[in-house]
Amino acid sequence: MSGARRHVQLESPFAMHRGGQLMQPTIAYETWGTPVGRGDNAILLFTGLSPSAHAASSPGDPSRGWWEYMIGPGKPIDTDRFFVICINSLGSCFGSTGPASIDPGTGRPYRIEFPLLSVEDIVTAARSACAALGIDQFHTVAGCSLGGMDVLAYAAMYPGTYRNLISISAAVHATPFAIGIRSLQREMIRSDPAWEGGWYGDDAGPKEGMRLARKLGVMSYRSGEEWLERFGRSRIPETERAGGVPLGPEFEIESYLEYNARRFIGTFDANCYLYLSHAMDLFDLADHGDGAVETAVQAIDARRALVAGVTTDWLFPVAQQREIGALLDGAGVDVALHELESIQGHDSFLIDEERFAPMVERFLSADTP
Amino acid sequence: MSGARRHVQLESPFAMHRGGQLMQPTIAYETWGTPVGRGDNAILLFTGLSPSAHAASSPGDPSRGWWEYMIGPGKPIDTDRFFVICINSLGSCFGSTGPASIDPGTGRPYRIEFPLLSVEDIVTAARSACAALGIDQFHTVAGCSLGGMDVLAYAAMYPGTYRNLISISAAVHATPFAIGIRSLQREMIRSDPAWEGGWYGDDAGPKEGMRLARKLGVMSYRSGEEWLERFGRSRIPETERAGGVPLGPEFEIESYLEYNARRFIGTFDANCYLYLSHAMDLFDLADHGDGAVETAVQAIDARRALVAGVTTDWLFPVAQQREIGALLDGAGVDVALHELESIQGHDSFLIDEERFAPMVERFLSADTP
Repeated sequence: MSGARRHVQLESPFAMHRGGQLMQPTIAYETWGTPVGRGDNAILLFTGLSPSAHAASSPGDPSRGWWEYMIGPGKPIDTDRFFVICINSLGSCFGSTGPASIDPGTGRPYRIEFPLLSVEDIVTAARSACAALGIDQFHTVAGCSLGGMDVLAYAAMYPGTYRNLISISAAVHATPFAIGIRSLQREMIRSDPAWEGGWYGDDAGPKEGMRLARKLGVMSYRSGEEWLERFGRSRIPETERAGGVPLGPEFEIESYLEYNARRFIGTFDANCYLYLSHAMDLFDLADHGDGAVETAVQAIDARRALVAGVTTDWLFPVAQQREIGALLDGAGVDVALHELESIQGHDSFLIDEERFAPMVERFLSADTP
Repeated sequence: MSGARRHVQLESPFAMHRGGQLMQPTIAYETWGTPVGRGDNAILLFTGLSPSAHAASSPGDPSRGWWEYMIGPGKPIDTDRFFVICINSLGSCFGSTGPASIDPGTGRPYRIEFPLLSVEDIVTAARSACAALGIDQFHTVAGCSLGGMDVLAYAAMYPGTYRNLISISAAVHATPFAIGIRSLQREMIRSDPAWEGGWYGDDAGPKEGMRLARKLGVMSYRSGEEWLERFGRSRIPETERAGGVPLGPEFEIESYLEYNARRFIGTFDANCYLYLSHAMDLFDLADHGDGAVETAVQAIDARRALVAGVTTDWLFPVAQQREIGALLDGAGVDVALHELESIQGHDSFLIDEERFAPMVERFLSADTP
């Protein structure tokens, strides 16, 4: 476990957005920098589906974080000036309460009896966690992918508590294509007999289903353009091919997907994956505006917003970033919209430092705390 | 079984392109129209991965064919003028010999002991079948998707036997992205315990793996743009949702995928799917030119070629159609390249009559037999 990770217990019971409640839920988080006041220099950072709160290295945990190039002293999110708090989503499995956690009511893991998870729950839990730490105002609320959905929900739910928004590769709601992809991933997991209807044991679980689901995930997170450049039609050397697999892997791209999938198994709980994935499908900003996103955004009172995405992203297409930009603009927010030509698809924000770092740096340096 | 389906037995042994041989292989086909000479008015039509030879209705089989709008009296492929022969691919399961057929050497189905299948085998078997019928010259060799790969292979392998080519939504070789998608589909099938290492019984087989693989197939064949228009975020009515499936289907897009997947199970043999899918990954036109596609196309002596694809196709992207067009043009073929703005993705040729019908009609009417 990360030496930089901290935990805070939320007030109990914690009512869930779509019904049910949690007793004594915990939120894991990490911070960088020093807070000023109630959050004058605070950046609240939400994550995508799978990362932990370890967004960057620190003395307590020198390992690389998922946004290492972005966060740190002198970096675009400059921790000499900003206090950054990254939240492990409610429903995840890196210290925050989720389906793999013990239900205090039964003494067993929640598993599939965890209440239905919504983006709104992630947001409310994060806000409650920050409040418990004495931070209830934010210079900026930021996030990528699912984290960007969190940002939009936060903005609609808690006006008056933030100055700026950063929404990267997000959506006001998922496209049917993204829902189709995620629905199939969930089905691969549920179809694995080792899922056992959700009641697998602590050291067991649907490893095969998770391995296949992760491969589809990696495909949806990257782009054909990138793989054409990186892999083309390169073959796995004959000596390294799995023996005895009829019609088995032969191309480097297959080896890359296998490597990525195997790395994921065992690090992420299957039920947590199902709940978080499902929450992404269910999220609709329009729910905060009587069914109309145009109404929902009227509550948003950010001064400025950075809205960005990439042209090779087919899970959260760039048209969805334009939609977010136009909606916020219509609500009176000063919007900086960036359509980046990164080649790495949806995952570009993790990789393409060259395009993302200066963009974020410029946005934040225009409003220094 | 189709009343219009005919069978022809090929000379035996039939040597396979990548090794092994078949004894007494059979090719199933259907024809429309009346042949002139040795094929002055003949159109050889290859299919995609999953269709049978039933491309259009006829008195012998009045059911709709997979290219019904395209083929028939007075239609773009006008059977009052042309003799059309559509081939069920070697390795498939609609009358042609494939992994589900009985191996005459053992009296049992081949299953996973079927020799490795290549696009070149499909092409050679088709040519042999036509020759057995007295047709060894073609006015036009045509195909879509895998069938378009067949067209390119045919053109490189049998110069001097065709005047025109029609290659729709094809590729000189698969992209790593397409390989990744198909490789994952194959893995879903192989991961189903009911696959039994390829040795399932006649009425058994990996239904669950096929169902999941087909869903990914449908996703890869269509486009996000189409689904946004058709489904948006429409929900399955509460009363029609599967009861008791935790985190189960909720959106119309999920219901559509399920319907399509279930319709496919039981109609297509799992091993045939594995072999044909794998053949698509393996195909490389460059193999016919010492590793260079530019060399391979030098053998192609078509007068004219229609090369077409659609902008929303991400399995065989439009850039690959441009590549085919440029290569054929470089080989001295008079190329008509069409980049169509159909919204249905790779499958557009099956659906978008409005764009595809006039295009094919114009191409063929410029060289009437």
